[in-house]
Amino acid sequence: MYETLNQANAAVIAEIKRARPRLLDVKPAKECIPALNEGYALLHAGPPIAWPDMTGPMQGAVLGACMFEGWAADAAAAESLAASGKVRFLPCHDHSAVGPMGGITSAHMPVLVVRNAEQGNYAYCNLNEGIGKVMRFGAFEGEVQTRLAWMRDVLGPTLSAALARIPDGIDLTALMAQAITMGDEFHQRNIAASALLLKALAADIAGSDAGVEAQQEVLRFLGRTDQFFLNIAMAYGKCVMDTAAKVGDGSIVTAMTRNGRDFGIRVSGLGARWFTAPVNMPVGLFFTGYSQDDANPDIGDSAITECLGIGGAAMIAAPGVTRFVGAGGFSEALEISEEMREIYLDANPMFLIPTWDYQGACLGLDVRRVVETGITPVINTGIAHRKAGIGQVGAGTVRPPLGCFEQALEALAAARGLQA
Amino acid sequence: MYETLNQANAAVIAEIKRARPRLLDVKPAKECIPALNEGYALLHAGPPIAWPDMTGPMQGAVLGACMFEGWAADAAAAESLAASGKVRFLPCHDHSAVGPMGGITSAHMPVLVVRNAEQGNYAYCNLNEGIGKVMRFGAFEGEVQTRLAWMRDVLGPTLSAALARIPDGIDLTALMAQAITMGDEFHQRNIAASALLLKALAADIAGSDAGVEAQQEVLRFLGRTDQFFLNIAMAYGKCVMDTAAKVGDGSIVTAMTRNGRDFGIRVSGLGARWFTAPVNMPVGLFFTGYSQDDANPDIGDSAITECLGIGGAAMIAAPGVTRFVGAGGFSEALEISEEMREIYLDANPMFLIPTWDYQGACLGLDVRRVVETGITPVINTGIAHRKAGIGQVGAGTVRPPLGCFEQALEALAAARGLQA
Repeated sequence: MYETLNQANAAVIAEIKRARPRLLDVKPAKECIPALNEGYALLHAGPPIAWPDMTGPMQGAVLGACMFEGWAADAAAAESLAASGKVRFLPCHDHSAVGPMGGITSAHMPVLVVRNAEQGNYAYCNLNEGIGKVMRFGAFEGEVQTRLAWMRDVLGPTLSAALARIPDGIDLTALMAQAITMGDEFHQRNIAASALLLKALAADIAGSDAGVEAQQEVLRFLGRTDQFFLNIAMAYGKCVMDTAAKVGDGSIVTAMTRNGRDFGIRVSGLGARWFTAPVNMPVGLFFTGYSQDDANPDIGDSAITECLGIGGAAMIAAPGVTRFVGAGGFSEALEISEEMREIYLDANPMFLIPTWDYQGACLGLDVRRVVETGITPVINTGIAHRKAGIGQVGAGTVRPPLGCFEQALEALAAARGLQA
Repeated sequence: MYETLNQANAAVIAEIKRARPRLLDVKPAKECIPALNEGYALLHAGPPIAWPDMTGPMQGAVLGACMFEGWAADAAAAESLAASGKVRFLPCHDHSAVGPMGGITSAHMPVLVVRNAEQGNYAYCNLNEGIGKVMRFGAFEGEVQTRLAWMRDVLGPTLSAALARIPDGIDLTALMAQAITMGDEFHQRNIAASALLLKALAADIAGSDAGVEAQQEVLRFLGRTDQFFLNIAMAYGKCVMDTAAKVGDGSIVTAMTRNGRDFGIRVSGLGARWFTAPVNMPVGLFFTGYSQDDANPDIGDSAITECLGIGGAAMIAAPGVTRFVGAGGFSEALEISEEMREIYLDANPMFLIPTWDYQGACLGLDVRRVVETGITPVINTGIAHRKAGIGQVGAGTVRPPLGCFEQALEALAAARGLQA
């Protein structure tokens, strides 16, 4: 243990700055995550949760995954299985993984393989399905199943073949450093990073032996999936934050995630322990035909981006997204990032933001500062319909409950032999 | 003639706003520009200029084109031919074309074919060669010739084959509307638009019958050529401004261009007449080993971007470029765009700039306002070495001489029967 929390936090921040995650491959999840090979097992977003406590979108995604894996022939059979107690539901975060919204990840779904070239750890995330009726937002039938099968049979293998042709994979820090100058904050806006990724992969997709039909399908899918990079940014954040957690000391938040019921955080000095409190309801703009009444409570591992200091904290980098999430214009974006500066300890020297006069993105979310100021991180988020089977209905912002941070601070004080 | 200049300008601006240029094809210049089929003919940037008056980069590019066309076996023979009077040097602007820097375009170079879907007119521009030792900046031997041949034999035909698969081509207004929210101003920064273009073309490049080797080469070239879109933005600007010129009245600038010696402008109410004055010297940042002493005076048709109201006038959209051209940080970018607002009459409803609180880019550069305020447009520009054979040495900003605008205003007054 370091003598002071400040010293510990300096060590954590040094590890974060040293991390260099690279996208190496795309593989079936079972080849990366051993727990998925044993019986019926599914990864989910957020801190631990049991089937009956899951909200609609996560339950819908569970049904989708049971059908996709061939464990159930239809939704009714899938629901019986899910409710039977035979399926183990495991937090992504406990398996070097993250997943957006429901976060449901099963054995045969392809995952991004991201490796930290400096510290050597791996992180995984499933692939972005695009928008609308998609599994991560709780839809599970018809086109959802067709797309999941295509991702398994075509998208995953084609990306793997292309990445195999690129020695040491793709330097994600360099790519994101470019994209943050192009209006991405990597949570609700990834259009630049997705285009830069396509640019980096296109020649090797065309040169792979995937066949011209698969090549074209994959290039078209990447071309229209502007949030494709979100899942990569999430794996990036997880890869970096798991490295930070290894320091084993300090008050830096190393995970922020939501399962639709609870918001959970982990802290660098407190290992894998979750500090949870009930999630809030995201507020934002809704697609035509939907309203705030349709919104599911806050859900998904994607807040790993805000944990790293991008996403909502980098709103000023992405004034194009502020309107999309209903957060106003340029001056409001500036206000949000300036407010976030109060609760993060440092600036990221890799992610310089031209619209912030080249200041670095926020870095090192400090539990102490959150509790002292009462300022909680702004999270840019997609909004799922609260019922299973529908999908995304909007996008907005949400904040974590302060309670998580207060509990963590008390535990930190206790761990260091201090009174809270 | 409209009753007032204000009415005329309103009509010009309406035409500009109505224009919808689309990228349809890439073809050999001779198939698009009849004048290039007669004897020795070359297009050049800027208002008319004779061989002895050309500066180094344009002369170098002329030598390169003579060798590329097979008119001369080496630089010495090319120089003799160029000086012989046998070569006709024609302004791009008189042939529905534009060209960056030297602007030299010959019969067998591929050109972008851009058609205005609303008003029906065409505009052409050669293809961007990338950076460094390139013909447009005056280099002419070795790798320059190899690249020009590859562009003729591989890049042009492959892009043509891909575009043939896209009905009605690519909607450039929509693409640029996205890219301006991603930090491009379309003169010195086109990384977003270039990536979005690659995204739009990649699947059809892979699906074309160009052969896998050509496909990969083209995808790699597009992937590393972050200024590829500049030439498309230029053809876009020319296509729009030629439409504006057809109104035949008003005080809106319809062309701004430089041949290395003279800066020339055209005005909507004064047809094809050039108003010229000696060019200024660009000031900016230089590549390692070069300095201001190496800079060629201002050159190239690329100021068609500022004529449209992007480029320097849209500096606020591209804070990432302000440092590259030595123009400071975010607040300086804002100051420049705010200053430019004074001399443009309107805002472009298609190109909304998030960093400017979603104001539209400048539109309708007014000769009267320039003369009244003494404010000349800021032009973001590449800087060529003043000697032939070297290439690009930096990037910076430059302003046109006020004299062009003063002369044009006097001519406008005369044309309308008023005293200047």
